Amino acid sequence: MQDTSGQNVNISIIGASGYTGAELLRLLLFHPFVNILSLTSRQYAGQKVSDVFPHLYGSKVSKLVFTEFNVDTVASMSDVVFVCLPHRAAFPVVRGLYEKKPELKIIDFSADFRFDSPEIYEKVYGVKHHAKELFAKVAYGLPEIFRDEIKNKTIVANPGCYPTSVILGLYPAKISGLIDENYPVIADSKSGVTGAGRKSSVSFTFCEVNETFKAYAVEGHRHAPEIAEKLSLKKVRFTPHLVPMNRGILSTIYFKTDAAKEELQAVYNQFYKNEKFVRLKSFPPETSHVAGTNFCDIYVTKDEETGLGVAISAIDNIGKGASGQAIQNMNILCGFPEDTGLNQYSLWI
Amino acid sequence: MQDTSGQNVNISIIGASGYTGAELLRLLLFHPFVNILSLTSRQYAGQKVSDVFPHLYGSKVSKLVFTEFNVDTVASMSDVVFVCLPHRAAFPVVRGLYEKKPELKIIDFSADFRFDSPEIYEKVYGVKHHAKELFAKVAYGLPEIFRDEIKNKTIVANPGCYPTSVILGLYPAKISGLIDENYPVIADSKSGVTGAGRKSSVSFTFCEVNETFKAYAVEGHRHAPEIAEKLSLKKVRFTPHLVPMNRGILSTIYFKTDAAKEELQAVYNQFYKNEKFVRLKSFPPETSHVAGTNFCDIYVTKDEETGLGVAISAIDNIGKGASGQAIQNMNILCGFPEDTGLNQYSLWI
Amino acid sequence: MQDTSGQNVNISIIGASGYTGAELLRLLLFHPFVNILSLTSRQYAGQKVSDVFPHLYGSKVSKLVFTEFNVDTVASMSDVVFVCLPHRAAFPVVRGLYEKKPELKIIDFSADFRFDSPEIYEKVYGVKHHAKELFAKVAYGLPEIFRDEIKNKTIVANPGCYPTSVILGLYPAKISGLIDENYPVIADSKSGVTGAGRKSSVSFTFCEVNETFKAYAVEGHRHAPEIAEKLSLKKVRFTPHLVPMNRGILSTIYFKTDAAKEELQAVYNQFYKNEKFVRLKSFPPETSHVAGTNFCDIYVTKDEETGLGVAISAIDNIGKGASGQAIQNMNILCGFPEDTGLNQYSLWI
Amino acid sequence: MQDTSGQNVNISIIGASGYTGAELLRLLLFHPFVNILSLTSRQYAGQKVSDVFPHLYGSKVSKLVFTEFNVDTVASMSDVVFVCLPHRAAFPVVRGLYEKKPELKIIDFSADFRFDSPEIYEKVYGVKHHAKELFAKVAYGLPEIFRDEIKNKTIVANPGCYPTSVILGLYPAKISGLIDENYPVIADSKSGVTGAGRKSSVSFTFCEVNETFKAYAVEGHRHAPEIAEKLSLKKVRFTPHLVPMNRGILSTIYFKTDAAKEELQAVYNQFYKNEKFVRLKSFPPETSHVAGTNFCDIYVTKDEETGLGVAISAIDNIGKGASGQAIQNMNILCGFPEDTGLNQYSLWI
Repeated sequence: MQDTSGQNVNISIIGASGYTGAELLRLLLFHPFVNILSLTSRQYAGQKVSDVFPHLYGSKVSKLVFTEFNVDTVASMSDVVFVCLPHRAAFPVVRGLYEKKPELKIIDFSADFRFDSPEIYEKVYGVKHHAKELFAKVAYGLPEIFRDEIKNKTIVANPGCYPTSVILGLYPAKISGLIDENYPVIADSKSGVTGAGRKSSVSFTFCEVNETFKAYAVEGHRHAPEIAEKLSLKKVRFTPHLVPMNRGILSTIYFKTDAAKEELQAVYNQFYKNEKFVRLKSFPPETSHVAGTNFCDIYVTKDEETGLGVAISAIDNIGKGASGQAIQNMNILCGFPEDTGLNQYSLWI
Repeated sequence: MQDTSGQNVNISIIGASGYTGAELLRLLLFHPFVNILSLTSRQYAGQKVSDVFPHLYGSKVSKLVFTEFNVDTVASMSDVVFVCLPHRAAFPVVRGLYEKKPELKIIDFSADFRFDSPEIYEKVYGVKHHAKELFAKVAYGLPEIFRDEIKNKTIVANPGCYPTSVILGLYPAKISGLIDENYPVIADSKSGVTGAGRKSSVSFTFCEVNETFKAYAVEGHRHAPEIAEKLSLKKVRFTPHLVPMNRGILSTIYFKTDAAKEELQAVYNQFYKNEKFVRLKSFPPETSHVAGTNFCDIYVTKDEETGLGVAISAIDNIGKGASGQAIQNMNILCGFPEDTGLNQYSLWI
Repeated sequence: MQDTSGQNVNISIIGASGYTGAELLRLLLFHPFVNILSLTSRQYAGQKVSDVFPHLYGSKVSKLVFTEFNVDTVASMSDVVFVCLPHRAAFPVVRGLYEKKPELKIIDFSADFRFDSPEIYEKVYGVKHHAKELFAKVAYGLPEIFRDEIKNKTIVANPGCYPTSVILGLYPAKISGLIDENYPVIADSKSGVTGAGRKSSVSFTFCEVNETFKAYAVEGHRHAPEIAEKLSLKKVRFTPHLVPMNRGILSTIYFKTDAAKEELQAVYNQFYKNEKFVRLKSFPPETSHVAGTNFCDIYVTKDEETGLGVAISAIDNIGKGASGQAIQNMNILCGFPEDTGLNQYSLWI
Repeated sequence: MQDTSGQNVNISIIGASGYTGAELLRLLLFHPFVNILSLTSRQYAGQKVSDVFPHLYGSKVSKLVFTEFNVDTVASMSDVVFVCLPHRAAFPVVRGLYEKKPELKIIDFSADFRFDSPEIYEKVYGVKHHAKELFAKVAYGLPEIFRDEIKNKTIVANPGCYPTSVILGLYPAKISGLIDENYPVIADSKSGVTGAGRKSSVSFTFCEVNETFKAYAVEGHRHAPEIAEKLSLKKVRFTPHLVPMNRGILSTIYFKTDAAKEELQAVYNQFYKNEKFVRLKSFPPETSHVAGTNFCDIYVTKDEETGLGVAISAIDNIGKGASGQAIQNMNILCGFPEDTGLNQYSLWI
């Protein structure tokens, strides 16, 4: 391994004690060009990484101690900051960091900067946004579609996990004009439980999730407008479901189309032909094939009886749906090869 | 408990060593009006129930021994026969039993008599049917919709598990003319693993199902034409998925409609108002609420943005989707109260 | 079903919104001699059973409303009270109820009255006991061993789930003098997650329990002295483990013995020969065989190389380990057949 | 990364389509000094890696095709061969390879060469051994204990998964003379389901393993004599159990000792102080902390009441318990740094 420590970028992670923080740490251990300097956590401040994440015991971050967030410290010591906070908590932190150090590269995991304008955000999330001036600096961090914009910005709004799976699954059909938009597009998505984050709640205790399956947010989920905006689609029906497993999202997407199966598959193959992290499959994917990775596996076909195109996409919700994609975005922002640190394959079983 | 043993019906179960057989046995232990006389199984012939199903040790069927199927024995000793065989294996057995004893009540779990005509069956299953003359004696065993027909027949084709969940979830909208059939109806269904039956196959070993989620039969599943026929719908898109849990089917069903949420809910409530086993819910159901029972829980709503009605139904695939419904059908055929032996509630956790 | 409503006993459940409360309700629906009148819950007061436990929708308790606990109301309306509260919270309630109505039958799920004397309790639980005078009224509710005492008391201390599995698994060897007590007895127990109760805690969220296995309370668990006392054993090593499943405890118990396998099995068979709820097996049990039931399945054998007897017992921790056993105790207290309401068999899969 | 392709070793994997083969492939993708040239599989011969293991699609082994085993081809093209065959099938292959090319480095996953002598093997496995002459060339591949022997041999018998967890958990106490051998040592082990291998069997289908827990091989398991021999212990009681999860073994080990907790911990810390893959913990480990890795996490304590030392060890049964350890052994045989390719941390959740 070449010695690059002199040129390494310095990393901080804000809100690092959740599942996306743990996954960032795990993945960044594979990354040759980073120094992880600072991890903040309100809940675990004062504790060592190896106490909060015993699986990382003995790694080079093992003895790092979680601290309270201090904007001056983080801004001054960092080249790149990952902000792993809930919506509403994120934008003040992003604004604070930006004001201290405008050239800082920031990857924000929250929804706070994902929309094209703060107005839509305020409507969807019911929150007053107080960092509206930053929207001009932000790119939506789905590299396969918005790579050029990401290169030209310093702040990246890391996409939602569901939107990542649905947008990647639909975009080639949309951009090629193959979707008959008189009919609603339907995304029926199923997620593992890490998607809910690391929090105590009776609803997410083992016994109340294990051995059961349900839909939720049936009257409307905040990821639906994110999907619709990025795909420029008016009518998107999105229904999320909870699967009793840790990781993974599988989205089954239906759209009316005149295109035949072969045309759909050709269009998808062409669109993603240079994309390392999108794998077009000749059979339907499953989530265990991508768990722990930055891959999005896609299968597309046509149901001739109903005239529906059916695209099925699988990601790891905290991989390509969160921390993996965040590192991919960092690599673009920093000029590293885009797959640096992201070359693992799934454990499968 | 009143002494009814004198009037009890005599029961045989053909192919009794699988999951539907085990569930029939478990449920029939609650049934006051039956004597279980004969269990057949090619694979386990000669073994006791308590060896094949150790959970039933000590019950009144504990010492019953599985035997090879013999048409004369079964016909002569039985009033009711449950035929738990795969498609193609079932119709010769049903025909043989019928020929020996035309008044025998037969509940067939296979697909062999589910369609209105043998021709469709032959097309869908690619099998030559050699008991076509029996179709006139057969009712499709979904009591909430076809109760009157069941009463007048002696043979019942027990519905498929997926069709049960989808038909019950759509029928009130269909029969009330609330579905705009210019748009395809989409049933996105998710099933636990018991739906695959009790068989050895690498694909269904623990490690290859656990912690993963996938769609299957994406190019077409045999339950789609069954759904379409019973609902008189031309365009139905049906996609089944496999959930890492034992029991349960949740179907998320989308249909274009002009009806508002309130109208949909009113129509469903009205249609099922006297049905003990259909529970209309004011929030989305989950499969653990119905596991081990004969209930079908349904929630219906409207997505105003896309004009889609969304119906979500939950059943236990081997309860209301198989053995529970079979007992419900037997109760109708025999003139017992329809819920006899079916009054359990789910374990939930 | 005979009409017994005139003689039915009136039931209240204190702390009814947890897992043991849900299981009591589910099981009592099978019980012909009870009226469930009152359910208390601090957290869910004002809500209907069908909202807190949607699986019970439509049952006869569906519309019952959880209330705050009021000692006068509960005492006056009840013949039997189940107290499902944590240790320390239970004894004031038991004392309050007793003072209002000394003839009340009380089944206490907590540890507060399980020991022979309050002194041991105070030492083990580190809590000052303020209802010491009641110990004389209390029986330890393990009917297979203490049935006669239960019959002569009005208050029953329902045993811990782990002690139930270990004591039933060891008692015949102990009482027959077959254990060489110079060697420590070791109980290595494994429990499903319902054993932790229904509470929000990051440690018991789905993702942190799923796909992992661990020992806990390795330096000492409060059930160890309960086991030792009831078995009159000085040296018991007890290690509990957490299994990623909802229900069930399997205890693997090792004891030094001179007895051969055949003698051990004969002694166990003899001891339990009239016990409906203990099933001696000819092969090792598994927890799915007893889930949802009041059974304890036991297999005992001898490892001749090491001179160790090995007893393996399986129960449902909220069945025979809690709510099932509580109903068994109620049946004894009330003079009902001991298995009333407890005749279900496991779902198995 | 330095260019080492010129010096890379050439690898073949015999019986590569099972779980240990998949894990070898996944891990070897991290290894900079290997070329994977040949994969054999009777069942999947003719199929590509990406069809049999879709999670590896796009990797450098993606297009490799499984072939039938041919001793000449494999011997001639390989520097190192991993033999992933069941016992009895392995020794003819090992012998054949050795005869063609005595300098070949062979790592055998089976039990065929694990014992010190073929006689014990024949007794334990009931199989006649026809490659007895090779025992002199074989080292038992537990590097933390037998590293020096491994360095001097060309054939390594990769240890059983259970023995790895038990031997590492006991060895420091044994070698330090801290075990009172008048008392039997007890290893109560719990394994995930990958331990059973990739095979179709009703017993290992999802539904019959999920949501249940059981002991098996209670009358005697073949890993017990392997444990006893390597630890030079006469009396070892070993009971394996099956946990409903994919990966991981946790062994809870009891031994009589006069040593206090501090002494035990000091001895363990000292013994493993230079071992990268053994992590002494200050709290009990769990299997998710080591899943996907080559780590063995150990916690040791003392139960003063019973005089028992309690050691708890956690490994991934197909990591340190199989494929990870095999690569560690290869690294030793080839003179690579021992952790080459093995520096991943667990996914945890």
